[in-house]
Amino acid sequence: MTSTDKCKLIAVVGGGVIGGGWVARCLLNGITVNLYDPDPNAPRKIDEIMVNAKLAFGKLIDGPVPPQGKLHFTDTIASAVAKADLIIEAVPERLDIKQSVYRDIESAAAADTLIASSTSGILPSDLQDKMTTPGRLVVAHPFNPVYLLPLVEIVGGTKTSRAAIENAAHLFRQLGMHPLHVRTEIPAFIADRFLEAVWREALWLVKDGVATTAEIDDAIRYGFGLRWAQMGLFETYRVAGGEAGMAHFIAQFGPCLQWPWTKLTDVPELTDDLVTMIADQSDSQSGAYSIRQLEQIRDDNLVAILRQLQQRDWGAGQTVNAWQTTLKTAAIAALPQPAELIRSYEHTVSQDWVDYNGHMTEHRYLECFSHATDEIMRQAGIDDAYVAAGGSFFTVETHIRHIDEVMAGEPIYVDTQILRVAGKKMHLFHSLYHQSGRLLATAEHMLLHVDMKLRRASEPSDAIAAMLAEMAAGHAALDRPSAAGRAVGLAP
Amino acid sequence: MTSTDKCKLIAVVGGGVIGGGWVARCLLNGITVNLYDPDPNAPRKIDEIMVNAKLAFGKLIDGPVPPQGKLHFTDTIASAVAKADLIIEAVPERLDIKQSVYRDIESAAAADTLIASSTSGILPSDLQDKMTTPGRLVVAHPFNPVYLLPLVEIVGGTKTSRAAIENAAHLFRQLGMHPLHVRTEIPAFIADRFLEAVWREALWLVKDGVATTAEIDDAIRYGFGLRWAQMGLFETYRVAGGEAGMAHFIAQFGPCLQWPWTKLTDVPELTDDLVTMIADQSDSQSGAYSIRQLEQIRDDNLVAILRQLQQRDWGAGQTVNAWQTTLKTAAIAALPQPAELIRSYEHTVSQDWVDYNGHMTEHRYLECFSHATDEIMRQAGIDDAYVAAGGSFFTVETHIRHIDEVMAGEPIYVDTQILRVAGKKMHLFHSLYHQSGRLLATAEHMLLHVDMKLRRASEPSDAIAAMLAEMAAGHAALDRPSAAGRAVGLAP
Repeated sequence: MTSTDKCKLIAVVGGGVIGGGWVARCLLNGITVNLYDPDPNAPRKIDEIMVNAKLAFGKLIDGPVPPQGKLHFTDTIASAVAKADLIIEAVPERLDIKQSVYRDIESAAAADTLIASSTSGILPSDLQDKMTTPGRLVVAHPFNPVYLLPLVEIVGGTKTSRAAIENAAHLFRQLGMHPLHVRTEIPAFIADRFLEAVWREALWLVKDGVATTAEIDDAIRYGFGLRWAQMGLFETYRVAGGEAGMAHFIAQFGPCLQWPWTKLTDVPELTDDLVTMIADQSDSQSGAYSIRQLEQIRDDNLVAILRQLQQRDWGAGQTVNAWQTTLKTAAIAALPQPAELIRSYEHTVSQDWVDYNGHMTEHRYLECFSHATDEIMRQAGIDDAYVAAGGSFFTVETHIRHIDEVMAGEPIYVDTQILRVAGKKMHLFHSLYHQSGRLLATAEHMLLHVDMKLRRASEPSDAIAAMLAEMAAGHAALDRPSAAGRAVGLAP
Repeated sequence: MTSTDKCKLIAVVGGGVIGGGWVARCLLNGITVNLYDPDPNAPRKIDEIMVNAKLAFGKLIDGPVPPQGKLHFTDTIASAVAKADLIIEAVPERLDIKQSVYRDIESAAAADTLIASSTSGILPSDLQDKMTTPGRLVVAHPFNPVYLLPLVEIVGGTKTSRAAIENAAHLFRQLGMHPLHVRTEIPAFIADRFLEAVWREALWLVKDGVATTAEIDDAIRYGFGLRWAQMGLFETYRVAGGEAGMAHFIAQFGPCLQWPWTKLTDVPELTDDLVTMIADQSDSQSGAYSIRQLEQIRDDNLVAILRQLQQRDWGAGQTVNAWQTTLKTAAIAALPQPAELIRSYEHTVSQDWVDYNGHMTEHRYLECFSHATDEIMRQAGIDDAYVAAGGSFFTVETHIRHIDEVMAGEPIYVDTQILRVAGKKMHLFHSLYHQSGRLLATAEHMLLHVDMKLRRASEPSDAIAAMLAEMAAGHAALDRPSAAGRAVGLAP
């Protein structure tokens, strides 16, 4: 496939934590996945990863997303890869195992299909060494959780073609990621060199009894870890250096390099005692939570951080914003023609919505309709980012008919029909019901798309317009509500 | 001072990036600061830091905060420290300079006043070596920006008293920080050992042309940097290891320690060429922004991340939540008796608030009053965390008088009088005006404090009750509005 094609089928070989993370990311992008994993527990493990991944994805992404891709478990590597647009290898970190997998792949896949290895540190030149078509092998090194973290390091070997690198960047960007091309092939690439340096140092601190695993983690997450979620090492130090600039900063802190600040020359031996010490400390630090709970805490934290960076369109947030746009486009392409009313709001009348007469107070009716309108906007793909960029619909006209009362604690819902969408204008008809089906009120709205910076009517973006047109087309076949078009004071 | 006393006056010696950050954190906590810095530019530099710090603090902290502390520049170290409850040293990283500062401090300060050095790596035993009262010296190592990042490493030397360590933890917790006691004195303590290891590795990558500063930063902030904002190294790996646990994870990844994944044995020489290379790369990476812009981007990002962690009451967010409570208590203690109406809402009528008659639609009047009520709640210290914990006020009764109309684009405001606060009940009187002073509407509300989990009336927390009582006491002296107490349909 060329770098302008859409990826429709991805083969994943190996369904562990990393392979499973790839499967989740691909499926959530609406892409079909063939997974080969000989472990009989693989389906259960993938199910568990998908529970977390779907939860996190739902909280991260606003607006329309394509229907989830289909997952097929295959019995052989050959059947997994035969028709794939991209092959992701995520088997254990042993060169012989990986080379054997590539042999199987080459025997079955098209000769130009990209093969991406998830290795954390093996050189691509070594990986491709025994291949007959080595030009299409790249390393695409992701970070756990793969379905949330955007970074993927792309590394080519001596025989990797330039086209393969470009194709990899294109494909992984399509999956919502930030491909970082590691231009020089070195063991552990870039990020893992840092992780390895920190890991060694941390092992020494534990071994020497200087700090426990919990203290080490706190030294990270209460301090520089917060900085590194949004700026890296150099930009952070550039700011710290102030007006005097980067060269000044280095001159000031350079001498520390000569001080005995790290225990770099030695590697701690992983004796049973040290492993037990770490495991025990980790138990006392985190043992109050199950792994499943920790995963969900981690994912919720990451989503919360990513969403903030999205709003600020900075760093990883930029990547997620671009991903959201990709997903919207895919959602529109995959959209079935809706032929039913949209269930745009569901709620239970709360005590504070009720006035001293004991029924839902007047302006809460309009609030229900306002939420229903918001849901139509949301389904059309209008999200925080779109609004932040200055686009929105304003209600310019409303006609409400109050028909019946409703009490606290009673369940209500709104069904919405899109009467017409044309350029800047949208015409909606909401009906508010008690759960029993008793009609409580109707509201007919005319909305106008506005550029909130210019404070004037404007055309919606192409993606939003296309989505609204699709939604309206489905509703065109529905009966027009008899109450539509009435004015206050006119008899029916 | 003992560890239960409140800190009222802090002396800071040295007003650079770190010292200035300390000054900002102390002032924002309502504490008076004496600053000694011989640099004639110190006042300007502190002003610049305060602009950023106040902006960030305002976005980070909800609810009442104490009035900002006063800052005094002193001509000598002696006059700065003489009456201080805590002395923070933040002078350049040279042992001889620091020891000379301690001599001056010891000649003027009370013999038991805690001295906290901000050094990033000099051993406290060396710092205190020439002191006559070495027992009260600790290292309190903060992280830039000091006014935002909660971590402070507390390290004692061989002569440091146990009381000094406890006192330091107490004082820095009062300043909204997370004191991490580094129990074993080693160069660079804990966090900077990691930063140093990463810094060395990064310098090699740049020097060898493997990656640019921008690529290195991206390898951090799109991947593991996001993880480290909320979990550290060990908890992250514990989760990645899955059900098999920490020992399994170490066994699996342990062999990498023997691989050539880091360039640890050598220290790169900081030649002019290397410094220039880094400075140039940093310019092309970040040069589109001024340092001031980068600082504000960084601060806004950090605030956004911290606020999310606050909502989730996790890690650094827990620290900020505890800080907020401390600040509220200080705010109540410092509260003057208010004797004026509270300007509880200001707004300009927007297009979507107007109905087809061209004037602000009926239910938006109530929305204005609702925002005004929210502001009274906010000033009383009711914030997201309080509501999340289940406490809130519900409006149980409202009497609105619609008096005049108002058009789109017109500026409006609400003034509020607290008529009475008693136990669970609060009685408010809002008046909505056009900016010209033309009265548009009044609203009289009875509110009831509720436990939202039990869904029943409940007493507010002591802190909220105290704050409301203070606010109401000031309003008791004001005239009661003539419209208060009227019912619908009764003539005045």
